[in-house]
Amino acid sequence: MNRIFVGIDLGATNIKFGCFNGEMELLGKTSVPTNADMGPEAVINRMDQTVRELISEKSFSLDNVIAVGMGSPGPAKYRDGIIIASTNMPKFRNVSICRILGEKLGKPVVLDNDANVACWGEYVVGAGKGVKDMVFFTLGSGIGGGIICDGELVRGWDGNGAELGHIIYRPGGRSCNCGQRGCVEAYASANSTAKRATEAIEASEKSSLEQVLKEKGQITSKDVYEHLAAGDDLARRVTDETAQALAILCVNMLHVTEPRRIVFAGGMIAAGDILLERIRYYFGRHIWTLKKEPLEICFATLGEDAGIVGAAALARHYHPQ
Amino acid sequence: MNRIFVGIDLGATNIKFGCFNGEMELLGKTSVPTNADMGPEAVINRMDQTVRELISEKSFSLDNVIAVGMGSPGPAKYRDGIIIASTNMPKFRNVSICRILGEKLGKPVVLDNDANVACWGEYVVGAGKGVKDMVFFTLGSGIGGGIICDGELVRGWDGNGAELGHIIYRPGGRSCNCGQRGCVEAYASANSTAKRATEAIEASEKSSLEQVLKEKGQITSKDVYEHLAAGDDLARRVTDETAQALAILCVNMLHVTEPRRIVFAGGMIAAGDILLERIRYYFGRHIWTLKKEPLEICFATLGEDAGIVGAAALARHYHPQ
Repeated sequence: MNRIFVGIDLGATNIKFGCFNGEMELLGKTSVPTNADMGPEAVINRMDQTVRELISEKSFSLDNVIAVGMGSPGPAKYRDGIIIASTNMPKFRNVSICRILGEKLGKPVVLDNDANVACWGEYVVGAGKGVKDMVFFTLGSGIGGGIICDGELVRGWDGNGAELGHIIYRPGGRSCNCGQRGCVEAYASANSTAKRATEAIEASEKSSLEQVLKEKGQITSKDVYEHLAAGDDLARRVTDETAQALAILCVNMLHVTEPRRIVFAGGMIAAGDILLERIRYYFGRHIWTLKKEPLEICFATLGEDAGIVGAAALARHYHPQ
Repeated sequence: MNRIFVGIDLGATNIKFGCFNGEMELLGKTSVPTNADMGPEAVINRMDQTVRELISEKSFSLDNVIAVGMGSPGPAKYRDGIIIASTNMPKFRNVSICRILGEKLGKPVVLDNDANVACWGEYVVGAGKGVKDMVFFTLGSGIGGGIICDGELVRGWDGNGAELGHIIYRPGGRSCNCGQRGCVEAYASANSTAKRATEAIEASEKSSLEQVLKEKGQITSKDVYEHLAAGDDLARRVTDETAQALAILCVNMLHVTEPRRIVFAGGMIAAGDILLERIRYYFGRHIWTLKKEPLEICFATLGEDAGIVGAAALARHYHPQ
């Protein structure tokens, strides 16, 4: 009988679903609006219904499904399968989502935070394939993280480990939304990259980005990378600072969990090889000289599917059959 | 029959030995000079002989011994039981110490680096007792580290993880012996504490330590703490800087492996409550405000026995019977 694993990526705007065979090959996927304002009961009913539709569309039955995995924004009690709270889904408070969906489907459901799930996806079938020790960063509006040590996710005593964007990079430095100062997130996220470019222009630094700011009223990290590719000096300086912060983050993680590979994901990797090369360059500049470090630094390969793949792969990890 | 576990702490100057029962109660201990210049064969023969003597002095026989654990300075291939090199024991190069000693004794021998072993000792019977996620720092001439995640040591892909003294605290800052700049070791080790006090006096800062420098030609971290206790302002400022660096290290480790407890060991904890209170104070000042963190920060309790206890406890961990 075909063994099927379902992965669910619960976002504030959309819920993505994927069904996979035991080799984690994608058999089919779909997406529905989250409509979180309708409350958790309606959302979970919708999940139940969508999983059933997706499975039957692919000519399988629920009997084929071994387990379901789900990624959601934190904070959550992943071991208990409970979403504690969500900034963007205020009606979700202490929702035992694994138990409720599990009872409806009659299948085990496992939960983890979205960064851990994406990390696990890259680890199992993406850029982390073939190593047992990996560190993962998502460079989006903030910086999320995931850590694999000897083939297992590091979760921390209360499930809130790997908040790697809040490692302090410059003590006393830029304010971060979390209440700390100098977090690496405040120097190297997509938002911070855009913000530093904006600040420089407002301080009268010359740049082709000035026109963008004038026309659109704001600059995005995408603008920065487009102007970088076109040779703008300010875009180059801002990207260099981002790369340096990320390189020092790599040095620090090497000295903590000693990964064999560090994988960057998220919107900002669209900057491409220019960014990757600068991270590698600064890593070489900042790492110790005691011994040669064969650390691999690379970009993620799964793109937007990382969430559903990772969730399904986690379901397989905990419920192999 | 009594189950005995032997712990060996191989240092450049002395080798310490302890024998423990299955509950990790110390039954007897001894120490011999290392005489590393006589080469690994002589040293290992001496180990074999000393273990046999210690066991029989306590009226046990080798039949009672289940396994032997050993801590040594790195770098080592702990999985293979091989000491690769040692700064202070130059004749030890690629020594299969576990295999050789194991064949002599007819018992399994496990190896780990000294910081991991001390960390494991504190975890099993010392200041880390009762938690499953812990971070450990030794504050000596350098800063060593150990990490326990979900009840297991984090070693890294090549066994060189938890080099926590080389986390970069101030990018571009003080030079470290490792070749990096701004390592926390260069700000918060015992050596650095003494060095910063010396620099300040040489730059004409007023302090009761000036007299010490004049008389002894150098200042130690012990001097700094003695003068701190006596109310010297410079000693207070230097200690405060040390505490702040260690507090930020705690913040960063919380965001990586989310320990429930962080344990400080090493010569510098002789500074006592003044240092501990300042670390806790600065942790409270620097940690995020997103949620309350019940992290416990405390001092180690095993003192100089941590090495032999930890080694014996590691032997028990891998060879319970």
